[in-house]
Amino acid sequence: MDRNQTEADEIATLRAATHASLRPSVPALEALLFTPQPVLDHGFVRVIDYMGDDNAIVQAARVSYGRGTRRVSEDEGLIRYLMRHRHSTPFEMCEMKFHVKLPIFVARQWIRHRTANVNEYSARYSVLDREFYIPAPEQLAVQSAANRQGRGEPLSAAQANQVMALLAEDASRCHAHYLELLNEDEEGKVRDPARPAVARELARMNLTLNTYTQWYWKCDLHNLFHFLALRADPHAQYEIRAYAEVMMRIVEAWVPMAARAFRDYRLHAASFSAPMLAVLRRRLAGEAVSPESSGLSKREWAEMEAALAPSAQ
Amino acid sequence: MDRNQTEADEIATLRAATHASLRPSVPALEALLFTPQPVLDHGFVRVIDYMGDDNAIVQAARVSYGRGTRRVSEDEGLIRYLMRHRHSTPFEMCEMKFHVKLPIFVARQWIRHRTANVNEYSARYSVLDREFYIPAPEQLAVQSAANRQGRGEPLSAAQANQVMALLAEDASRCHAHYLELLNEDEEGKVRDPARPAVARELARMNLTLNTYTQWYWKCDLHNLFHFLALRADPHAQYEIRAYAEVMMRIVEAWVPMAARAFRDYRLHAASFSAPMLAVLRRRLAGEAVSPESSGLSKREWAEMEAALAPSAQ
Amino acid sequence: MDRNQTEADEIATLRAATHASLRPSVPALEALLFTPQPVLDHGFVRVIDYMGDDNAIVQAARVSYGRGTRRVSEDEGLIRYLMRHRHSTPFEMCEMKFHVKLPIFVARQWIRHRTANVNEYSARYSVLDREFYIPAPEQLAVQSAANRQGRGEPLSAAQANQVMALLAEDASRCHAHYLELLNEDEEGKVRDPARPAVARELARMNLTLNTYTQWYWKCDLHNLFHFLALRADPHAQYEIRAYAEVMMRIVEAWVPMAARAFRDYRLHAASFSAPMLAVLRRRLAGEAVSPESSGLSKREWAEMEAALAPSAQ
Amino acid sequence: MDRNQTEADEIATLRAATHASLRPSVPALEALLFTPQPVLDHGFVRVIDYMGDDNAIVQAARVSYGRGTRRVSEDEGLIRYLMRHRHSTPFEMCEMKFHVKLPIFVARQWIRHRTANVNEYSARYSVLDREFYIPAPEQLAVQSAANRQGRGEPLSAAQANQVMALLAEDASRCHAHYLELLNEDEEGKVRDPARPAVARELARMNLTLNTYTQWYWKCDLHNLFHFLALRADPHAQYEIRAYAEVMMRIVEAWVPMAARAFRDYRLHAASFSAPMLAVLRRRLAGEAVSPESSGLSKREWAEMEAALAPSAQ
Repeated sequence: MDRNQTEADEIATLRAATHASLRPSVPALEALLFTPQPVLDHGFVRVIDYMGDDNAIVQAARVSYGRGTRRVSEDEGLIRYLMRHRHSTPFEMCEMKFHVKLPIFVARQWIRHRTANVNEYSARYSVLDREFYIPAPEQLAVQSAANRQGRGEPLSAAQANQVMALLAEDASRCHAHYLELLNEDEEGKVRDPARPAVARELARMNLTLNTYTQWYWKCDLHNLFHFLALRADPHAQYEIRAYAEVMMRIVEAWVPMAARAFRDYRLHAASFSAPMLAVLRRRLAGEAVSPESSGLSKREWAEMEAALAPSAQ
Repeated sequence: MDRNQTEADEIATLRAATHASLRPSVPALEALLFTPQPVLDHGFVRVIDYMGDDNAIVQAARVSYGRGTRRVSEDEGLIRYLMRHRHSTPFEMCEMKFHVKLPIFVARQWIRHRTANVNEYSARYSVLDREFYIPAPEQLAVQSAANRQGRGEPLSAAQANQVMALLAEDASRCHAHYLELLNEDEEGKVRDPARPAVARELARMNLTLNTYTQWYWKCDLHNLFHFLALRADPHAQYEIRAYAEVMMRIVEAWVPMAARAFRDYRLHAASFSAPMLAVLRRRLAGEAVSPESSGLSKREWAEMEAALAPSAQ
Repeated sequence: MDRNQTEADEIATLRAATHASLRPSVPALEALLFTPQPVLDHGFVRVIDYMGDDNAIVQAARVSYGRGTRRVSEDEGLIRYLMRHRHSTPFEMCEMKFHVKLPIFVARQWIRHRTANVNEYSARYSVLDREFYIPAPEQLAVQSAANRQGRGEPLSAAQANQVMALLAEDASRCHAHYLELLNEDEEGKVRDPARPAVARELARMNLTLNTYTQWYWKCDLHNLFHFLALRADPHAQYEIRAYAEVMMRIVEAWVPMAARAFRDYRLHAASFSAPMLAVLRRRLAGEAVSPESSGLSKREWAEMEAALAPSAQ
Repeated sequence: MDRNQTEADEIATLRAATHASLRPSVPALEALLFTPQPVLDHGFVRVIDYMGDDNAIVQAARVSYGRGTRRVSEDEGLIRYLMRHRHSTPFEMCEMKFHVKLPIFVARQWIRHRTANVNEYSARYSVLDREFYIPAPEQLAVQSAANRQGRGEPLSAAQANQVMALLAEDASRCHAHYLELLNEDEEGKVRDPARPAVARELARMNLTLNTYTQWYWKCDLHNLFHFLALRADPHAQYEIRAYAEVMMRIVEAWVPMAARAFRDYRLHAASFSAPMLAVLRRRLAGEAVSPESSGLSKREWAEMEAALAPSAQ
């Protein structure tokens, strides 16, 4: 496609121009800058800009604690302390700006994170491309019986093919009719000068929720970690998790110390309620506590067991 | 419909039960409480709860200004002063909770207002009803030539009918296939026990953007006014403006003094830039300023003229 | 004092007037409405208004989950599920407005909670009363050696008396000079018509940080719980904790189910990091893990032991 | 002072190290980076980091408007359009991080801007230096008669000297007693090993509100403009305005196009209410409207006249 070539050329130009600055830079992140990291079938995440690094977190903490931080001699130790005790403001001193291409139904989950800045492609102004998300066969699964909001077993190959065909057909037809309403062809040219072009803000309502949109999304590191804690979690829907996982790798290149602390104290940590702690104490004292004698609900018991299972990360 | 009857019964029950409270209540708003105010073809806005009234704004301002406010003897004068000088915090002391039913593409515009609380119907958990927005013929218009994001002339009756039929057909087919993926009929019963039910979180991507969703949306009065200033404005898309106008009438029943001040100082006010003020001064001094001699861009000149036109509200 | 009598009369008047509303009310909270709950030596917290109750949380969750929630038959079970899984938006549907009188140094900690609405008494407009916080002897303690931001052992009675005298003397002198700058006496009358009155916005800078201020502070229940989790915690400074504890009791009167869930899953819960979970698994498997063999830092080991100690709530 | 020398050395080191990055940099801002810009008697503002430039605003707008923006050929025209129409989200794509030293009473006004990230020096952890703000004689003024929150005429030289002496004496004595409570001398050494050191979190309450504190403060450009619109305004208290004016000059070095648009459409613009617009129309039609025949309140009339006065900027 011509347009894709143009974008690739623009990125190559951006990546070829180095600028001198007094601001510290992060070489491992610079290596990723501007380049789209593919997600799903047509989506991507790319870093457009960033501010700060591991050291900026430490520096902000030292402003807060003043002379008091002299004792914490090591930077990583300080970052881990901040993460463990939910001293979140130093993490807010780092900022990242992403360019993301994503299906509309994923965008609708994502936008619920309010503490971020967003500029989304507007279908009131411009025409959306003919690109929709069609899940890969291994992602097509039945409704979970155990989890009302999740997926269970994958479909058979034949069933998956049927579903994919149906999704592709409906999305294509809806987009074709959308262009028909706009009286435009795929290249954006007027089809029939004698016919009216329905307003873009109206025509777009005919599109399906798997149509791709795109946005700039900017967020500080504290709120980015909050996003990742929810969206890189196994309970998150696969499609948004796919984005979160790519972003997690970007964060690891950017702030490796903070990313390690986040994994240990948030992503792979577990919260034990007061009733669970009581059970733990009994077990550590040698008592064989059964689900029945635990005083926990079945669901809580299962959650505690899952957190303590060796297979948990 | 059975479900509609159930909802009507629930509302009647709620409206029949009066509770005693030390909190002040607003009779004109109580008359509207819980009852859906229709918007578009299947949408509604209804007030679920509220906190505060005109007097709560005054009371909060008097806390800020302490003895200093004794001079402003009249409540409405104080409210107008606060509105004029953008002293916004007293307005934040009032809060309203709405239940709204709205097309997804409208919800996507609405959610951009971040300073609000939202609980939206989740299509990961539950099945969306077969209800979509089809614009009335008088709302179907061509793309505006003057305004890249707006509508121009309405379509002819024949053209409008064609568009409505196309929108209805695509939305219906997509929803039918959605139920087919879920292996459910319209009543939510399993269609074919031998077939798998695709996960709800996947099947929903086949729906069109005019499908109705619903949410609880809660906002303080300052941010509600900000929402109304943007969305009750003639530049807003008709479909969200239809909601804003119903909400504006609700606000007038709730806080009549603040609503009047909002109309005078925000909704029907105009901002004049430094260059426009320079032109105004010349004109008031008797000079006949032309667009060319004004130093304004064409677009700014037109905006100034529009603000000064007698036809403006 | 005359002014105190006036305020008491106003509260009595407010408490005598019952209003009918279709909004549900909470009798246990109505019993507290408007009445100041004393905190510290001159401070108070009083509820001015509220919106919602336990049932409003359930109702908002059911909007989100739609038909999906029919299975969770019991309201308290649903609220506990929401709290445990950090589904925070239904808690945002409840709102409370407080009137608080508090020392300025406490206000400076409190205001860091950004997701709230505030109207503070303005010392640019009005004159601050001659009231300062002087800690009770049992609260006067030495700097903690273990915790760089905390208190250690209390002072001896003689030392405490000295400190209290010094604090009272400095605050009094500074306030007396403040009035002198304003050329006002304690009743707000001009002292010497021949002398100028320095601007209030300037004179106030002479006051000490233990001077009392007051504000209206409004917050949704999710953010109120976040405030309480941080400020009712033993690591919080005693003075703000004193406010948080009174507010916790108010919340218990207001939303008893949510308050219980908050105690179990937040306030008295503990988070175990990935490395701590590894240690726990080894201990539950019967291994005697020592601090040295645990792989944890000394500080983390101590934190884990504290969470598992029987004396922890 | 040793400490000042250390800080100067650190800044010189930072300014000597240039880093290569693919991120665009702004030479006019790089020239200011890290260097303290003095404000008031002991305060400063210095830029620690930044993200984005004028071009980043344009780039974000073009993502939103897609192909639709091709028509707006010129970048500055697009930025002015965005500013005029309050399309604020592209401005949110730029971010700046400041290090600020400021009196506590100024910090209390500043912190009311909630959409920012803050790390303040903590007097629970560390000891505050013996530095307080004493207004310059020309800033010492009487309470304004016209404006309940403002200043009027300056004091005479003799009166000003008296006030300055009183402020300096009270602040000094309070700080001396603060160190006495901490049992520390000015160099942070223990004074008397036999005496207890009162907890820092307690001792600090003896300080006056003109004591200097410091913080890192990070904000996006949209919210920074909002801050500047309120705080660079003549109605703002002089002391915070002094900071805003320095920050405005920094913003002009950073994003010159956006800064110009901000001056024209926000800082030096005026809002005319619906009743004022009616008066303007009558005057432009040649009618001699008097305050009495205008239908405006006295105060609104005066505000309109002020906006139209040639002396206004």
